[in-house]
Amino acid sequence: MILRAKIIPIKIGRDAVIMNQADADELGLLEGDRVRIIAKKSTVATVQIAMGLIERGELGVCYELAEACDIDEGSEVRIVPVPKPPSVEYIRKKLDGGKLTKDEIYRIVKDIVSNALTEVELTAFVLSTYIHGLDFDEIEWLTRAMIETGETLTFDEGTVVDKHSIGGVPGNKISLIIVPTVAASGLLIPKTASRAITSASGTADTMEVLTNVTLSVEEIKEITEKVGGVIAWGGATNIAPADDKIIRVEYSLAIDPRPQLLASVMAKKGAIGAKNIVIDIPVGSGSKVPNIELGRQLANDFVELGRRLGLNVTCALTYGGQPIGRAIGPALEAWEALKTMENKSGPRSLIEKALGIAGILFEMTGKAVNGYAYAEQIFKSGKTLEKFKQIIEAQGGDPNVKSDDIPIGDKTYDVVAPIDGAVATVHNHRLVKIARAAGAPKDKGAGILLHKKGGQHVKAGDKLFTIYAEKEWKLDKAIEIATREPPLIVSGMILEKYPSYRII
Amino acid sequence: MILRAKIIPIKIGRDAVIMNQADADELGLLEGDRVRIIAKKSTVATVQIAMGLIERGELGVCYELAEACDIDEGSEVRIVPVPKPPSVEYIRKKLDGGKLTKDEIYRIVKDIVSNALTEVELTAFVLSTYIHGLDFDEIEWLTRAMIETGETLTFDEGTVVDKHSIGGVPGNKISLIIVPTVAASGLLIPKTASRAITSASGTADTMEVLTNVTLSVEEIKEITEKVGGVIAWGGATNIAPADDKIIRVEYSLAIDPRPQLLASVMAKKGAIGAKNIVIDIPVGSGSKVPNIELGRQLANDFVELGRRLGLNVTCALTYGGQPIGRAIGPALEAWEALKTMENKSGPRSLIEKALGIAGILFEMTGKAVNGYAYAEQIFKSGKTLEKFKQIIEAQGGDPNVKSDDIPIGDKTYDVVAPIDGAVATVHNHRLVKIARAAGAPKDKGAGILLHKKGGQHVKAGDKLFTIYAEKEWKLDKAIEIATREPPLIVSGMILEKYPSYRII
Repeated sequence: MILRAKIIPIKIGRDAVIMNQADADELGLLEGDRVRIIAKKSTVATVQIAMGLIERGELGVCYELAEACDIDEGSEVRIVPVPKPPSVEYIRKKLDGGKLTKDEIYRIVKDIVSNALTEVELTAFVLSTYIHGLDFDEIEWLTRAMIETGETLTFDEGTVVDKHSIGGVPGNKISLIIVPTVAASGLLIPKTASRAITSASGTADTMEVLTNVTLSVEEIKEITEKVGGVIAWGGATNIAPADDKIIRVEYSLAIDPRPQLLASVMAKKGAIGAKNIVIDIPVGSGSKVPNIELGRQLANDFVELGRRLGLNVTCALTYGGQPIGRAIGPALEAWEALKTMENKSGPRSLIEKALGIAGILFEMTGKAVNGYAYAEQIFKSGKTLEKFKQIIEAQGGDPNVKSDDIPIGDKTYDVVAPIDGAVATVHNHRLVKIARAAGAPKDKGAGILLHKKGGQHVKAGDKLFTIYAEKEWKLDKAIEIATREPPLIVSGMILEKYPSYRII
Repeated sequence: MILRAKIIPIKIGRDAVIMNQADADELGLLEGDRVRIIAKKSTVATVQIAMGLIERGELGVCYELAEACDIDEGSEVRIVPVPKPPSVEYIRKKLDGGKLTKDEIYRIVKDIVSNALTEVELTAFVLSTYIHGLDFDEIEWLTRAMIETGETLTFDEGTVVDKHSIGGVPGNKISLIIVPTVAASGLLIPKTASRAITSASGTADTMEVLTNVTLSVEEIKEITEKVGGVIAWGGATNIAPADDKIIRVEYSLAIDPRPQLLASVMAKKGAIGAKNIVIDIPVGSGSKVPNIELGRQLANDFVELGRRLGLNVTCALTYGGQPIGRAIGPALEAWEALKTMENKSGPRSLIEKALGIAGILFEMTGKAVNGYAYAEQIFKSGKTLEKFKQIIEAQGGDPNVKSDDIPIGDKTYDVVAPIDGAVATVHNHRLVKIARAAGAPKDKGAGILLHKKGGQHVKAGDKLFTIYAEKEWKLDKAIEIATREPPLIVSGMILEKYPSYRII
């Protein structure tokens, strides 16, 4: 059927075209069916049925699709119904509990990347792996397919390493210290990082306070070759692009299927050419992995998947029961990381964790027998800070930035201890909720600075934490949440009296 | 946040609004998150992020939403982020294999009907029931929730009955004979029927050849009270509206979860107030139920669900190995049904099945001890035809229509037997594929008329079937498929020779 293009100036989702009901009936098409669009270039799109606007003989095309296929307003476009791609059949097989072959998984991943699957079909794939799981063969193929359907990095010389935190613990700005420490040793660490989805700041959000993080794969390579390390936003690259689409569905349903987690992490690390990788698995109530036993299982899975991919993986099970360091939110975290490098000292949880993970990489690559001591030596010598400034500059930022230059939100509110006692409980989720209400990660200066952490003694009236915001109304919202759901619980030393006496 | 409405003249799906990236960031909203729209009226919508068109401070609203909330172009609209509805949590529970409570299922169904679930979430619900199943409590609650979230019919007097075919066998025009036969006895049969989704003609498509089928619930009630029966298109009513949305997802994935099938059928029958129901379950290779054992299981499930709902259900396991009657396609089926009523005779498969099912309804309601004989008496007396004409007239059609007046596609092609032999195999799916390629159900006059059916002897050159189409190019396409995938296989009486001799 030949139709006249009508270009619609908005995004209508996943390569869709809009048809008049009568034309769709003519071809026996229902909403969600697929057609091949034949213009100067050709692609497959899914059909939506118009409720108005599109007349008989017209084809609504969004401007992105028009550009992709070189379609001009009013030009003739031929459409031909095409069947569902075979990957829909494979997804059904997995829905029914079957095992997928290598070819089937590659086909599914290719179709995800090329937008050949509808929203319903993509959701079905993610859920089928959530419910039925994937065995190690399938996870390996999924990872390889994710790598191969995107851009990859290769370095002609040097040893490429990387680290990844699976997330779930607030204030985890360790990469800002690990990357320069590792790069200062001569290893290459082209780190891609994510932005916050549900947290208060992703590593990319934090680094963006100090420099540009939107880099192409080419730029990541160049900068790494020049200064040894980079901290770039992975979302700006075309590395493992299937993963971003899968994560969107997972976010919608608040699920995190184990096979997808493994493939997602390892695909990103594999794609940038890292051969030695440390995975940080924060463990503790309020993090993603509630106990050490589950942490060990996950660690085993990462190591086994690495072995199959020819990658050397070590997992670090780390303490995730409360925030790392004291700062939560992009600018506050950038400030704390930079300050710690400037002072060569700072919160123990931050320094020990950052140098510990750098140390594992040094031991894995044979740089040192005692990796921690080697990392500490680099850190204490000032080489970490020096390298960090080189990285900031190479990415386009100001290398002379000082921690105290970093603008923090000027609307603040102190939360104080209601009674004498000790901080008995720290709720990670509540801290994140308050920081996000205050504006993080969008408002870079918003967040929380903890004055007390779990286990510390306090007097009534002592400051527990300060909320920072850029906007008064967001501060108010954050205060409201902090009051309703206190993130730090102070208990008196006498938790309960029994039996209780009352003297009259 | 207060935004200026910009009305977009197209459908952007499920109550979505379009925001500028910067505004969405400001509120911490990601695509797919929900906002409450507060204008003259209020509703919940999901957020899409604009790639152009929508400036900061603007909110893209499709005209349907604008109408629903009484929003004028340029008027101020307040939006407030709202959390996911609790039903998303319940869907996750079922994804994890849990049992849903009555309240949880009601909540999910309400959210489906009010479009409060995203495409991803709705798909997750359908798939969770496909993979983990629902137990009988859950199926009962699902059915009741589907009924209660839509319009229902109640009759002050009379005995209401209904029938339903679960589908899968081509040419199943029996309702056109059953409904008037039953109505002629004084029972009430307000039948709602579907249009074809994957078949060559739904009962609603076939009936539409003779009269109007787009009736409101009010009209269905009035006509039933007047003439005893109706054959209306269910899709035009608001009966069990959750079901239509669920079926769309199932169609996308070509799945038919048992719990949804049971709930879907029984909700529609329950909603129109039927107390005695016959379910036609065609059994045979090429139908939905391949063998009698599976047919019995399904029948038991229908009867049990009926018992729980206080409905009297009888299942008829019927022969589904080849088409009912000889005609496939809307006009051809309408012609065959009407011709059979005019002649008081016709294909045995059609008459026996239609009167058999009507007979079961007569026995269930105590109208007759021998239901088949009673139905046959009505049919042979001409009362079936007389009542059918009354129904046609009551729905707005011409009661004087004769079968030979019905326009059939004038482009035809005869397929003949290649050899002497017998029709050994009839492929239902292939017949449907050819009829659809010829234009059915959209082109009412398109379809297939079988001259021979399974088991019949043929001579080489005898006509096996005729393809009808309204358009030459569709006929060509249908011929191509019929040649590549012959739907009727003729075998010679000697199927194979062994050992085979060759004389040189």
